[in-house]
Amino acid sequence: MTAPNMANAGNKQALAGLTVQQVIDLILKEVPNPRTQNTVDKIRSGSGDQLVTGIVTTMFPTLEVIEKTQKAGANFIIAHETPFYNNPDETEWLKDDDAYKYKVDLLNKYKIAIWRCHDNWHGHRPDGIAMGNLIKFGWEKYYNPETPRLITLPESMTIKSIAELAKKKLGISTVRVVGDLKQSCKTIYLAFGYMDPKMQIPVIQQMKPDLILSGETREWETVERVRDGLAMGQKTSLLVLSHSVSEEAGMEYMVHWLQPKVGNLKITNIPSGNPFTFV
Amino acid sequence: MTAPNMANAGNKQALAGLTVQQVIDLILKEVPNPRTQNTVDKIRSGSGDQLVTGIVTTMFPTLEVIEKTQKAGANFIIAHETPFYNNPDETEWLKDDDAYKYKVDLLNKYKIAIWRCHDNWHGHRPDGIAMGNLIKFGWEKYYNPETPRLITLPESMTIKSIAELAKKKLGISTVRVVGDLKQSCKTIYLAFGYMDPKMQIPVIQQMKPDLILSGETREWETVERVRDGLAMGQKTSLLVLSHSVSEEAGMEYMVHWLQPKVGNLKITNIPSGNPFTFV
Repeated sequence: MTAPNMANAGNKQALAGLTVQQVIDLILKEVPNPRTQNTVDKIRSGSGDQLVTGIVTTMFPTLEVIEKTQKAGANFIIAHETPFYNNPDETEWLKDDDAYKYKVDLLNKYKIAIWRCHDNWHGHRPDGIAMGNLIKFGWEKYYNPETPRLITLPESMTIKSIAELAKKKLGISTVRVVGDLKQSCKTIYLAFGYMDPKMQIPVIQQMKPDLILSGETREWETVERVRDGLAMGQKTSLLVLSHSVSEEAGMEYMVHWLQPKVGNLKITNIPSGNPFTFV
Repeated sequence: MTAPNMANAGNKQALAGLTVQQVIDLILKEVPNPRTQNTVDKIRSGSGDQLVTGIVTTMFPTLEVIEKTQKAGANFIIAHETPFYNNPDETEWLKDDDAYKYKVDLLNKYKIAIWRCHDNWHGHRPDGIAMGNLIKFGWEKYYNPETPRLITLPESMTIKSIAELAKKKLGISTVRVVGDLKQSCKTIYLAFGYMDPKMQIPVIQQMKPDLILSGETREWETVERVRDGLAMGQKTSLLVLSHSVSEEAGMEYMVHWLQPKVGNLKITNIPSGNPFTFV
């Protein structure tokens, strides 16, 4: 997928009606060193030259999100995560899978395009997902471009109060903690979504954050390293929000960020929401 | 690691005092096609020729489990999962990590051997982990060697009641469900621990179980496939127990299974327990 030069397009085309590819190019223009090769940020359904009737941003383009998109009169979903249950969006292994086939048929029937905006939204400066969350928490002023994943609170908060803040601001029913709820935290390492534990575990050693604020993690990797660290007297604890709800604020933030760039084209965030019921 | 022929050893050596390697060999002797190559089931601390003073089985050999092992007068931990926060137990990437160094020093100080029994305990027939759980649930009579991962209950149960049973029998405070708690289930696919979603997702298509009873899973893979399936009217739901508590019953079961083979050597299960607090 190439990103043609949009220097002379911009507002005129927005008024005349933008194509999927033109919207993508408007986004990529704002990203330093945008990734168009070696990225999951590809068109996963529909085509680049279809005219956009409305845009929906979401975390996971679930069947429910697709139905809601069609009802909203939109035909372009900008999704942070995979429609096809695997990050590189490989489909050969799913060719006999009924849910995969149903989803592809539904997208074709509704003529809905999906473009992943994962690597490039994280590649925006500041990281669009992180900033969406920081704004929700009221912490955007603590963002430090020198240490974009590490923030320092001016006043300590307990893990319990950070958990309650996350639940309230992100609309989560239940979160999981590895650590003592009464522990004070000033330095927080942001690991929304999923972060490779082979990158995350060294952070504990190098940065010694009081808390890793995580989306999804692996129990036999980061979770057990944090548990052993606490047992030997280290301070780094872990708050696990769950994947979808840990990044949706970033896709909601994209609505406000993108709207001024696409004229009167309607953009809506349709949250894919937390898939879990806690029992 | 080779498995010397134990045919003529057995009881005499058990009475005389068994070495770590002799205990390992006693276990491998009971496993059809035991894996000694291309397996994570290796000695991870201590040595094969040390005399065993007592055996502890556990899921994760955490610092807490190591301390309790030493206090119990045992010097051999049979652990299902990694001591070093990664399944192949690679250690080069951890050489500067304080928790790793602390753990290695502690194991050396206490002269505790760790042997992973992961692939071979799953390779036992029936799978030792699955059977430990089935016994806890009172479901061992539903085990079918033709479909070792799929059981069929004689009477349907709701997801809610299965979740409550799991919580009670495995001592879990909170579990997570993707699906309708009131849905009836007769066929249950056993996926304790972690199962590769590229193997798990095709099961939904091929076996159409009412429920996947899972330890740990990936949210962007199995969880989203289950969610889409339910949205299109499929019945396969997902119950996520958490990794450690989903397999500990299998390591507890090993105590009863192994005890008659090692004479009066004391074997104890020290559960590593659930690392999470739910808020």
